[in-house]
Amino acid sequence: MYVFSNEDIERILTMQECMEILETLYKDIAEEKALLIPRVDNLLPAVPDDAYYGFKYMGGGWPRFQMVALRVNSDIITHPEISGHARRVKMPLANGQWVGLVQLYSIETGELLAIFPDGVTQRMRVGATNGLGMKYLSRKNAVRAGLIGSGWQAGAQLMALLAARPVQEVKVFSPSQKNREVFAAEMHQKTGVRIVAAESLEACVQDVDILLSATSSIERVIDPEWLKPGMHVSCIKSQEVDETVFDACDHVFMHTNAQAKQMDNVLPGTPNIPDKHLGGWWKNEKKTSAGFPDLSDIVSGRAPGRTHDDDITCFVNNIGLGLQFAAMGALIMDKAKSLGFGKELPGEWFTESVHP
Amino acid sequence: MYVFSNEDIERILTMQECMEILETLYKDIAEEKALLIPRVDNLLPAVPDDAYYGFKYMGGGWPRFQMVALRVNSDIITHPEISGHARRVKMPLANGQWVGLVQLYSIETGELLAIFPDGVTQRMRVGATNGLGMKYLSRKNAVRAGLIGSGWQAGAQLMALLAARPVQEVKVFSPSQKNREVFAAEMHQKTGVRIVAAESLEACVQDVDILLSATSSIERVIDPEWLKPGMHVSCIKSQEVDETVFDACDHVFMHTNAQAKQMDNVLPGTPNIPDKHLGGWWKNEKKTSAGFPDLSDIVSGRAPGRTHDDDITCFVNNIGLGLQFAAMGALIMDKAKSLGFGKELPGEWFTESVHP
Repeated sequence: MYVFSNEDIERILTMQECMEILETLYKDIAEEKALLIPRVDNLLPAVPDDAYYGFKYMGGGWPRFQMVALRVNSDIITHPEISGHARRVKMPLANGQWVGLVQLYSIETGELLAIFPDGVTQRMRVGATNGLGMKYLSRKNAVRAGLIGSGWQAGAQLMALLAARPVQEVKVFSPSQKNREVFAAEMHQKTGVRIVAAESLEACVQDVDILLSATSSIERVIDPEWLKPGMHVSCIKSQEVDETVFDACDHVFMHTNAQAKQMDNVLPGTPNIPDKHLGGWWKNEKKTSAGFPDLSDIVSGRAPGRTHDDDITCFVNNIGLGLQFAAMGALIMDKAKSLGFGKELPGEWFTESVHP
Repeated sequence: MYVFSNEDIERILTMQECMEILETLYKDIAEEKALLIPRVDNLLPAVPDDAYYGFKYMGGGWPRFQMVALRVNSDIITHPEISGHARRVKMPLANGQWVGLVQLYSIETGELLAIFPDGVTQRMRVGATNGLGMKYLSRKNAVRAGLIGSGWQAGAQLMALLAARPVQEVKVFSPSQKNREVFAAEMHQKTGVRIVAAESLEACVQDVDILLSATSSIERVIDPEWLKPGMHVSCIKSQEVDETVFDACDHVFMHTNAQAKQMDNVLPGTPNIPDKHLGGWWKNEKKTSAGFPDLSDIVSGRAPGRTHDDDITCFVNNIGLGLQFAAMGALIMDKAKSLGFGKELPGEWFTESVHP
């Protein structure tokens, strides 16, 4: 049984490989060759008065790689008001740290194969998911991009962009001048690509082929006025767009329709796509309630992607999919073994001699 | 983060303490002060042709002890026919062992507190559950008992019996003469109580105040003809009884009505209580669909238990409850610390510095 650290996983995972294995996964999902373990949030009162405790899990089983993943998050959550806006903040009460763990199990032997924190994997799967959206939906000759956001997720989106298209220049904007300049300098050094801190949001979004939003905003980020023919818009949250943006696009795609309806009314700050768009824009007999096509529709060819160079396309990472952790897990186990990463614990600690 | 072994837990848990903490839990359940994580079985094709893979989890959160438990079972399952009867057998493919793991999390800090195999805890919670049934439902002056079964679960039922009532003699029967004699000798040595191997099933069930069934049978074990006034019948599976037994009883109780309906049609070899008994025998406005009262009804006083010495009562452990693992976990953590059991791993392996 292996224990990996976020640092191990950062060295193991490349964006290119994450996109490749997710592409295989979404084809299998389209053929119903993978089983989703739906996300469930179990909420309980917490010790701090204004907080609540969330025990969340999601996962899935992927027979192609004999892999089951379960991601567990154990969070103490508050909703403080910051600069007049409600935010969802997890309190780091585990000795100043957070608790999110991915567990991998073997379908072949039943064994617990590995446990590791979810942070880096979570970031890479979000990046790779939007990366697949860019690969399938943006113009093949896209060379200029604008990125709104300069945080942890923005870095992964930039890596995905560069893995998807031979982009030559990326403008980046975030409200803090320091943050965007540091981000631009660091990412330029890391990638060799020209990354420029934009002076304003308007400058960032002008004359770009791909527009990326990677924020923690729970209000709309993308202005429909910005959208120009041929542009691809990529968002990591449904709150970054709204129906005025969808109306300005020729083709809109979600990450996944699995659980989209269930989540709508459950969680504070989760997808807020209006009902009239669900089941409206694109229909076939397999999708009576879901609406917009999703990534498995795209990679399997079940849904048409971009049809003309002038089309405006939009990809929204509306919600995560537990199955992604099975794909990341298959990649991590395969590479960790050959690279010699991770701490190995005795397997017999995690098995038993009694028929359970 | 602690790793316990089944051997550690066997030394930590006493039946008396398991019954006490479960009694507190069921009172809290009656007041909705605990949150069930329902059992879900995720089934996938397995590598051996005649097998399937089951990824099962259940659990719950119990604010009284700031404890969340998740029990995960990762099983390769077959249904071989043995002596003309279908059985559900889990294949020990993890280096000859099985995989069932309990994880404990703190509601207070979010931390993963411990991981341990589920075997001993599973056995003790089944024992303690039926033990509470005996404590509340059998005659206070019960002194003679008959036990059908001599396996792993039968031992726990015997411990529960002795914790619940000052029983002076227990007859035990199982089809194999050797098994019942070895069991009787071992349990006599362990408990000091007179334990006798019965020559026949009929001899075992005669003149007893409490009749226990602890088998893996998926066919009826209890014959209604055996039931006499004043007797308490205790079963660890719903398949050990049927409606003819219920008809012969004055009061029938289930372990839990949580999930009882959902499970009915889902799993091979799970509860087969006929629909006409659900919602039939005992009703109040809080229980329109469930039917028989359950353990939380009993310990909270919401349902009357035995009302006369001559009543025939029956308690059926119809299905497990994930929340029991939170109660066992609270007990294990509390005692393991003071006794110095378990292997401690660095907590920082299981936390992270990034907001997940």
